[in-house]
Amino acid sequence: MTFISKDPAFAKLQKISTENTIYQSIYLVLEWDQETYMPPGAIEARANQIELLSGFVHKQKTSPSFKKTLGQLVDLTTGTPLSNKWSLQESACLRLWHKDWEKESKLPSSFVKECAKNSSASLAAWSQAKQQADFSLFAPYLEKTVALARKKAKLLGYKEHPYDALLDLYEPDMTVAKLTPLFQELKTALTEILSKTQKAKSQNIPALPGPFDPKIQMQIGKDLLQSLGFSEEISRLDVSSHPFCIGIHPQDTRMTTRIFPDLLISHILSVLHESGHGLYNTQLPQEYYGTPICEPVSYGIDESQSRLWETLIGRGIPFWKFFYPVLQKAFPEKLGSFPFLDFYRNLNTVKPSCIRVEADEVTYCLHIILRFEIEKALIEGSLKVKDVPSLWNKKMQELLGITPSHDGEGCLQDIHWAMGGFGYFPTYALGNLVAAQLFDTLKKLDPSLEAKIEQGSFSSIRNWLKDNIHKHGKIYTAEELIFQATKGPLQTSSYIQYLQKKYQDLYGYC
Amino acid sequence: MTFISKDPAFAKLQKISTENTIYQSIYLVLEWDQETYMPPGAIEARANQIELLSGFVHKQKTSPSFKKTLGQLVDLTTGTPLSNKWSLQESACLRLWHKDWEKESKLPSSFVKECAKNSSASLAAWSQAKQQADFSLFAPYLEKTVALARKKAKLLGYKEHPYDALLDLYEPDMTVAKLTPLFQELKTALTEILSKTQKAKSQNIPALPGPFDPKIQMQIGKDLLQSLGFSEEISRLDVSSHPFCIGIHPQDTRMTTRIFPDLLISHILSVLHESGHGLYNTQLPQEYYGTPICEPVSYGIDESQSRLWETLIGRGIPFWKFFYPVLQKAFPEKLGSFPFLDFYRNLNTVKPSCIRVEADEVTYCLHIILRFEIEKALIEGSLKVKDVPSLWNKKMQELLGITPSHDGEGCLQDIHWAMGGFGYFPTYALGNLVAAQLFDTLKKLDPSLEAKIEQGSFSSIRNWLKDNIHKHGKIYTAEELIFQATKGPLQTSSYIQYLQKKYQDLYGYC
Repeated sequence: MTFISKDPAFAKLQKISTENTIYQSIYLVLEWDQETYMPPGAIEARANQIELLSGFVHKQKTSPSFKKTLGQLVDLTTGTPLSNKWSLQESACLRLWHKDWEKESKLPSSFVKECAKNSSASLAAWSQAKQQADFSLFAPYLEKTVALARKKAKLLGYKEHPYDALLDLYEPDMTVAKLTPLFQELKTALTEILSKTQKAKSQNIPALPGPFDPKIQMQIGKDLLQSLGFSEEISRLDVSSHPFCIGIHPQDTRMTTRIFPDLLISHILSVLHESGHGLYNTQLPQEYYGTPICEPVSYGIDESQSRLWETLIGRGIPFWKFFYPVLQKAFPEKLGSFPFLDFYRNLNTVKPSCIRVEADEVTYCLHIILRFEIEKALIEGSLKVKDVPSLWNKKMQELLGITPSHDGEGCLQDIHWAMGGFGYFPTYALGNLVAAQLFDTLKKLDPSLEAKIEQGSFSSIRNWLKDNIHKHGKIYTAEELIFQATKGPLQTSSYIQYLQKKYQDLYGYC
Repeated sequence: MTFISKDPAFAKLQKISTENTIYQSIYLVLEWDQETYMPPGAIEARANQIELLSGFVHKQKTSPSFKKTLGQLVDLTTGTPLSNKWSLQESACLRLWHKDWEKESKLPSSFVKECAKNSSASLAAWSQAKQQADFSLFAPYLEKTVALARKKAKLLGYKEHPYDALLDLYEPDMTVAKLTPLFQELKTALTEILSKTQKAKSQNIPALPGPFDPKIQMQIGKDLLQSLGFSEEISRLDVSSHPFCIGIHPQDTRMTTRIFPDLLISHILSVLHESGHGLYNTQLPQEYYGTPICEPVSYGIDESQSRLWETLIGRGIPFWKFFYPVLQKAFPEKLGSFPFLDFYRNLNTVKPSCIRVEADEVTYCLHIILRFEIEKALIEGSLKVKDVPSLWNKKMQELLGITPSHDGEGCLQDIHWAMGGFGYFPTYALGNLVAAQLFDTLKKLDPSLEAKIEQGSFSSIRNWLKDNIHKHGKIYTAEELIFQATKGPLQTSSYIQYLQKKYQDLYGYC
């Protein structure tokens, strides 16, 4: 932390904020450890550590001392600063501190505890229900979780739609009203592309050979991170059951991947995905560490970073012109004579599947739209929990033309609802839209961009993302940031045009 | 935690104590991570996490609320309980809570911070001084550290000798008066054994062949832990630059080892050493987790557990009758035809060396006695820092018959003084004495003990240690525990007789 305000009240808030940030970063170490190296028998002890630490941070954030100091700087009801003297950065801090304080204060400790308790029971029930593909085991818990989410929306407050209050937790300022037309455009375009690809002359693509030695796969993952500009001085790559990236501090980025002998591509794409989050973390404005501006601006923008590397770059021809030879060299017997085009087609096959996390680029957002529509209806009260499975299956048929054979691969597949994370799903789709919009801008600014990617040179992309997204942290809102970086508002056309062109070329339809 | 007192004041202290224990366990996760997987560039961020958390725990332990509640249960000046109604366990809790509170309260926050700040600067200076073998670079920091340690002793208070106050931090109730005769007996006996081994007919022992594949070494280490009764469900083994064991919770034991291709034996002995600490941790009275009785009773007893496995068992013939074939099978080309006796002699060569951590069983305690004498003199003020190197070298000559070629392998070799850890060293020697005394008892109780070890069957040792040491945690004092387990007070004769017999047999002198 190098920035310290000269205003005593501001400096005091900054001190409390820095302490809270550090406590939260400790929480992240615990979380990383739990998913990587913690002996499984320690799970209860770990839960106790996490509960205690989270409760403590909540207490700090809503302490009378924080409130009093904040009240010396802003109008506690509206958040409006009491003076005009603040810099851009300081103003952003005041806005964010107030918003966070308001949110934490609106949710009483007893409610937060009730949610946590319900979430643990609900997760256990969900896990069993999913395994047994029996929605009835999960339904009573989902009822309760939906009721709590509705209550949460009410406690937090909203102008138009209760779902807005939940959306705002992940994507500040996003609303149902803004999302609906975007998702409508997407739905129309994606179902059309999907239909064309499925009607196109079927291609006989040989499956990727295997297996691939996990140790070599891991080394390749690490080498790839190095090519992308990561240093082992401040980051690392490990294995976990679900890939993730945890930014403990800009100097401490922990990424994970999942490695199976037959899933080489999935591993590489995971590394690219997490590296997008990771780069964001390493390039945050570290001088403001401890204030809320040294954080990713929103879940959607954070996801745009991972999707940019994973899909716009990582599923494209230029990247594989660079990286396929690396794979071939690492696995000469398996890939040495496996044709580039077959490899590329394997990577980009469009095929509706019931499982979101296995979806291709064309169908992915359709999975999200389905979830958005269902959870919005649950939160507004127009859909009953018991009707979720049938509505899910109906929408799957409408959007993707398939029907899950059971609820385990249908409405029970995701962990989000079991955790009470309503409002999260849309950020996945937003991430794709923003990624395409950013990549479009990048390509227009630098006509040699693809040539650089082909040579494995990523520094200009990294630097552009730093200067236009990362280094601003939360100084601007997500909307402002998109506008500044791309000279226009959030739109669907970049993503739609990208998909239209790519899959028309690939599937040879007109 | 299954034990909760029915007394409201006691239950309140228990709640605070449990929270502090959990916060400390979080600190241990941070420490483990720092030594194993943390990217090196995160060191400053980690230091900030640790400083914040330690300060918070100190604040909790000295809070008015803790003091007030403690005062309802014991006389705050003497620690005497205000009622007789307590169980053995509850009485122990009250005694330990009072002692800990008294210690924390006697050291003002400003003093604790000054020590921490000095320790950081001093460590950096020490590291450079050691590297350059230049004591003058470290001397001014050592002056300050000694001054702080003297002040600490004064703040903590003592009856006879200022060093007693520091000793008590690691080995409660131990004093210079108790230690001096024990160390005198040891010094006489060990120098005599050393002299006899060095005068014995020189043996031509072929060096152990190598190198040994680190991956296979690691697997062997893990297999060994399994033989000793560890489950990966609640423990793990990793690599770090210095081997250690951190008991985060009885359900979460983290051990590390150091692996080099040419240091196979050192790795195995490290695993055995850390497994001694580890078993202690896993067999603590978990039902009292959160109270101070679910902790190792003292540093000396904790060290006795590691030394018992590392030396009494791990440097003995029965263990290697079980484990040498395992090594031979793992490294058939290197060890297949390397004779057992030569291996055993390699493991037990007595040779004075300047470096404590490389010392054999006979010379190890002499290194400790040297340090004890020097640090005692520094603390009582009879020795000046500038005279440390010459006194060190003089004592090395007297005790071991050798002189370091420079201070880097002399008085600068250990980290302890740089950290301000005066009073710690004696626990290493105490560990050896207690280990031998326990092992003697074990052998007398079970005549087939060595036969069991030869068969790789360790459960009876593990269970005896559990029933006689581990499961009692801190219910008794270290002195009481030794007396109960061995039916006698702490003494040197078990250790001395063990060494006399072993090395007489090995070196063939009379």
